[in-house]
Amino acid sequence: MAKKTDKLGVVGTRQPKLDAPLKATGRSQFTDDVVLPGMLYGKIVRSTIPYGKIVSIDVSKAEKLPGVKAVITHKDTGGMMVGPDQLLLCDKLVYYIGDEVAAVAAIDEDTAIEAAELIKIEYEPMPPLFTIEEAAAEGAPVMHEYFEDNFADEKDLNFGDADKTFAESDHVRSDEFISNPTHNCFAELHGVLADYSLPGKISMWTPSQSAILIQKGVAQSLGMSESDVRINNLNTGGAFSGRGAMRPHHLIAALLSRKASRPVKIIATSDEEFIVCRSGGRNRLTFKSGVMKDGTLKVIEVDHLYDCGAYVETQFIMPIILSVTTQMLYKIEAMRYKGKLVYTNNVPYFFHHGGGLVPSQFALGQHLNLVAQGLGMDPVDFQLKNGVVKGHTTLSGIHYASCGLKDCIKKTARKSGWKRKYGKLPPYKGIGIGCGVMSSGGKGLYQHDTSAAFLKLGEDGKMSLFTGLPDMGQGSHTTMAMIAAETLGIAADDITVISGDTDIAPFDIGAFSQRGTFTTGNAVKNASLDAKKQIAKTASEKLNVKPSALVFRDRKVYPKGAPDKAIPFEDVVFDTLHSQEGRFIMGRGFYNSPTTKPALAYSFGAQIAEVEVDPETGIVTLVKMTVAHDVGRAINPLAVEGQMDGQVFSGMGQTLFEECFMDNGQILNQNRIDYKIPRPFEIPEMANIIVESIDPYGPYGAKEVGEGPIATNPHAIANAVSNAIGYTIKELPITPERVLQALRQKEKEKGGKSS
Amino acid sequence: MAKKTDKLGVVGTRQPKLDAPLKATGRSQFTDDVVLPGMLYGKIVRSTIPYGKIVSIDVSKAEKLPGVKAVITHKDTGGMMVGPDQLLLCDKLVYYIGDEVAAVAAIDEDTAIEAAELIKIEYEPMPPLFTIEEAAAEGAPVMHEYFEDNFADEKDLNFGDADKTFAESDHVRSDEFISNPTHNCFAELHGVLADYSLPGKISMWTPSQSAILIQKGVAQSLGMSESDVRINNLNTGGAFSGRGAMRPHHLIAALLSRKASRPVKIIATSDEEFIVCRSGGRNRLTFKSGVMKDGTLKVIEVDHLYDCGAYVETQFIMPIILSVTTQMLYKIEAMRYKGKLVYTNNVPYFFHHGGGLVPSQFALGQHLNLVAQGLGMDPVDFQLKNGVVKGHTTLSGIHYASCGLKDCIKKTARKSGWKRKYGKLPPYKGIGIGCGVMSSGGKGLYQHDTSAAFLKLGEDGKMSLFTGLPDMGQGSHTTMAMIAAETLGIAADDITVISGDTDIAPFDIGAFSQRGTFTTGNAVKNASLDAKKQIAKTASEKLNVKPSALVFRDRKVYPKGAPDKAIPFEDVVFDTLHSQEGRFIMGRGFYNSPTTKPALAYSFGAQIAEVEVDPETGIVTLVKMTVAHDVGRAINPLAVEGQMDGQVFSGMGQTLFEECFMDNGQILNQNRIDYKIPRPFEIPEMANIIVESIDPYGPYGAKEVGEGPIATNPHAIANAVSNAIGYTIKELPITPERVLQALRQKEKEKGGKSS
Repeated sequence: MAKKTDKLGVVGTRQPKLDAPLKATGRSQFTDDVVLPGMLYGKIVRSTIPYGKIVSIDVSKAEKLPGVKAVITHKDTGGMMVGPDQLLLCDKLVYYIGDEVAAVAAIDEDTAIEAAELIKIEYEPMPPLFTIEEAAAEGAPVMHEYFEDNFADEKDLNFGDADKTFAESDHVRSDEFISNPTHNCFAELHGVLADYSLPGKISMWTPSQSAILIQKGVAQSLGMSESDVRINNLNTGGAFSGRGAMRPHHLIAALLSRKASRPVKIIATSDEEFIVCRSGGRNRLTFKSGVMKDGTLKVIEVDHLYDCGAYVETQFIMPIILSVTTQMLYKIEAMRYKGKLVYTNNVPYFFHHGGGLVPSQFALGQHLNLVAQGLGMDPVDFQLKNGVVKGHTTLSGIHYASCGLKDCIKKTARKSGWKRKYGKLPPYKGIGIGCGVMSSGGKGLYQHDTSAAFLKLGEDGKMSLFTGLPDMGQGSHTTMAMIAAETLGIAADDITVISGDTDIAPFDIGAFSQRGTFTTGNAVKNASLDAKKQIAKTASEKLNVKPSALVFRDRKVYPKGAPDKAIPFEDVVFDTLHSQEGRFIMGRGFYNSPTTKPALAYSFGAQIAEVEVDPETGIVTLVKMTVAHDVGRAINPLAVEGQMDGQVFSGMGQTLFEECFMDNGQILNQNRIDYKIPRPFEIPEMANIIVESIDPYGPYGAKEVGEGPIATNPHAIANAVSNAIGYTIKELPITPERVLQALRQKEKEKGGKSS
Repeated sequence: MAKKTDKLGVVGTRQPKLDAPLKATGRSQFTDDVVLPGMLYGKIVRSTIPYGKIVSIDVSKAEKLPGVKAVITHKDTGGMMVGPDQLLLCDKLVYYIGDEVAAVAAIDEDTAIEAAELIKIEYEPMPPLFTIEEAAAEGAPVMHEYFEDNFADEKDLNFGDADKTFAESDHVRSDEFISNPTHNCFAELHGVLADYSLPGKISMWTPSQSAILIQKGVAQSLGMSESDVRINNLNTGGAFSGRGAMRPHHLIAALLSRKASRPVKIIATSDEEFIVCRSGGRNRLTFKSGVMKDGTLKVIEVDHLYDCGAYVETQFIMPIILSVTTQMLYKIEAMRYKGKLVYTNNVPYFFHHGGGLVPSQFALGQHLNLVAQGLGMDPVDFQLKNGVVKGHTTLSGIHYASCGLKDCIKKTARKSGWKRKYGKLPPYKGIGIGCGVMSSGGKGLYQHDTSAAFLKLGEDGKMSLFTGLPDMGQGSHTTMAMIAAETLGIAADDITVISGDTDIAPFDIGAFSQRGTFTTGNAVKNASLDAKKQIAKTASEKLNVKPSALVFRDRKVYPKGAPDKAIPFEDVVFDTLHSQEGRFIMGRGFYNSPTTKPALAYSFGAQIAEVEVDPETGIVTLVKMTVAHDVGRAINPLAVEGQMDGQVFSGMGQTLFEECFMDNGQILNQNRIDYKIPRPFEIPEMANIIVESIDPYGPYGAKEVGEGPIATNPHAIANAVSNAIGYTIKELPITPERVLQALRQKEKEKGGKSS
């Protein structure tokens, strides 16, 4: 058991991840580790052109190759769709380089590769659309044959009267920003093992953020009932918003398995991963805002054009996230979002880590920095003046029952020495602040936001805790164990977390929208309270006190104020089972936020970045990050800091390094050598500050520490770069090339007003 | 959904086993199907002599063989024991041919075999003891060095005053019987896969009747807490009383895994199986009874000498089973059991299928048949006169709340045409009756007899049902699903049964003492009622009636008497989740018989066998079996009949065929060709009669149909043989050789009184 605080026994201690020994020794099982009797290996044959007609598909040679057990093309899919615009296997047209056309299953991987190469597909190329600007232009050729234009989605969302509020503002300013395509670079490649060799039930092993959503997708596509689709989500090597939905390879493995009457495994190759893993597409974002002379922010308007790639999947949700988030951080009077999601012949996109918020937070943060500069205001003061507070209700009706935003701003400013540094640093050194907000729940994205939990206690007082919440490496299972341990007064080490298999795990939408700690955590607490009541019955009889007068702590149970009368927790559980009654203790519980808003709780953060820019090379060195995050309560400070560190790492990657270089629909750097993510020596000095606002609805007061810190990060870094070079770069990532360009542009504009 | 009766929706329908498609297509996973990353293969080096000293063990060549990752001998075990008299690996002495001396783990099976052969063990043989008579004789050399004699156990159990009752009896008779060693012949060989490569937790895959008991054994041996030992009991290919306890191979695989830091799999070879699978040893049983002239049975005495083999394990329980069972079938005034369990240098024994009761039931049944003959009484009348009835309390205090014994006797007699046939058949044709009783619970064998169950309902109204009760092929999981389905008014097909993994399954002692249907069945019913209450809350609001006025039936819920107002069960469950509350339905329940006796319910049976004997060859043909069994309520008549068929098959095997031929401690027919079990064409015509006494405590009135029918079988067959040849064979099995011997003996005794 780790070190304890005085008030709580387990919550607040620095608990190493329960599965760390397994991970460190390679014993954790991932999808590719699973081997089934008679298992085959599958390969997908993908389009080699960005757009065009399929003239013919010849599978005859592949089918004849010894060891090949199944070959499928669109003829085998019955016109099966994956999402509203995508055929599982292309029929007449292909829409991007990588589009799925055929697939094979063979007795080993080599044979499968050979068979895939033997499938001959003849194409008739058509003129493709690669940029959102081309595709969105009036009169552009329409890419998807059954649609009227290239807009996968269009939204115009209004909160308050934006036009009126702009008219009332003293100053109005707008800035346009660009972000380029990115890739998630999961540690674990996409993959699936499907066994659909018997009618009535399909079993599938696959990494995911949400086994339930993949289950629903597969069930719907195959015309099955949800419970007849068993999804085994073992360990997941990274997800970062990108592993929520069913993808073509899931169904392709299923159909190959059905045809071959054998289980089929498909694991993406390292280059295929860049296609399968839907990551960030190009964004063009214009932020416009109105402020009063005193710095009061009154209104924000966003104009958004973003790249869908060939297929839309669930990119619809982006405008909602973006528009809601934009109004959640500041006390504004009106807000408007206008956005268009544009089809192109690029790979289909979704989110990079950060829920798609990195480009928009980068843009909004840089924009407001310019607004503050325009007013001659210190950016920290600007944030403090306009930032939301506890008790605030946003334009869309979100109410903050807890809010540590100003605490975060003040603490990062103090700890980083902001006042001493801002405006006083030597040339090419800079400091910048970013602020962020994040929901702790995903209500509204699905029909309900329930998490359920179940637990059973062994004779030795140790526990199995069942949750449908996956742990993608962030340590959420350890957090769940700590909440259960705190509630029952035992140690997190006493708990084995069971998860990942939809037949076994209780219902849980999954690890989305930073709902884990808050929502599943509340469910786990409820299940633990259910068990506690049963244990208290025995303990109350033994100790001759009311159940409500019992303390559960340090693996003991004792009457309040009388720890000398303590009996071991283990003995109470043992005696409950070994009694006349023979009662075995199990606890069940669930939680569903009683709100119609995205969440009942929201976390807040501030980050201050310090950079050095080399004017010769354009290289930005991120020297230090001071990170404060209001997590409500840090259940596991070690994991909270891990999240802060990890998200700064990922945020700096997206801000300074990561970019897919596109050439006529082909990703040029489609591998992990040429696609650059930060290296260990590029990680800055970290100063982490945990702010605890103790949320009234959170389990032990806890809120999220999921993607909150990353949504607070890119603008802090970008603002620091602006501060260092005296020029604002409006395109992500801020690569050395763009810095040098900016320095040249600044030189050119010398004497004029910047940007 | 299968055909329904009027009163119940699911219970009483003929439900095919839920896992039948998986079994039939080879998709069911057994231990040997599990492959782990880095897994090694283990082999055990066994003693080649029956008794002697180990002079030296040389493992140097084995250790040097490339691919060998671990070699262990007693030096690696720290003197670890398996049971009270057995070292995990032999140190100074070996006690039987097959005793574990060393073990190896290597990268593949061939290398492991080669390494095992490279281990050189030098022995100094000592004079062995092979028969119970030798070993039990006064002055016999003591086999186990720390013990004073060769008796592993001695019991003298008295109920009532046997001496007095014998004195009061009109007639006293005694007969001595022998049974020879047998082997269980499981479809699945013994095996284990152990992963003990990390400290703190061990995972083990192994087939078993009781994952919990193996867990306890391993935990105790390795000095771990129960919950730190994870037993994965996938499918089990037969168990028949023989797969309850931890065996040396479990710990050997664990120690090899620990030493090699890799998972290790050990699967017995087909000949090794005869050593690993502790089956039936030799029994010498003398039954003595006292009756009145009118046929009233007053007292039974048993004298019992039985072969322990080299080690005792849990053979202690045999006298309890035997003494309790003997007094459970007849209204007697007194009973005495005297037994000695004798160590020999044979393989360690335990039970063959039938809980060890086949030899004793054979003996008791033949003995009482002779008693009835002596009185000139029809055996059926004798059974009817003395058999227990509902409301009876046995000498040991067992009370019968339900009892269908006389129903069984009468129905088999009528259906078989007993009156028409008994005493009226041509020479070498015979008819015989056997009666039996069996507990539905194992209370007293362990500290408590709790079974727990848990369930969760998917959005589609389908269920996962969690139970620790293993299904060894008898269909118990299907029975559990039917009980849950009946309670909730859905179909058994809607249910996935989750079992086998101690981390996941709720507590359950296992499939012992025919406790499954009764005890786990009650737990499943309780868990289902818990869920039903939650569903009823929603349905009651929707239908505007009290929860108690709701009917759950045919996947629908409706107000009593108003099936036209029915709403689909699926919709009620879906709406409960998709409500404001977001409630996810889980049910938990447990059951522990409120009794201090072995069980709260007992089942009864009668069987009538018809045979033909070929006087030339001595071959007995079992022509027909009429089987009646009081199962309380047949949850699944298809499975009940399957149990009846299967147990007649197994019972006829033990009665007519099965015998291990021993030669100086060596099993001569140590393979499945020379060890004879019945072949399909030897299965008789079956006439099955299900008797339903509707037990007040059973789930829907159900009791066991586990090993009840086999305990009713051997004496029916043996009595029929006696009836056919006019001579009673008192040794099992009744092979053609013994029949011919009997016929010769009868010839010799011609004119004298039989037996």
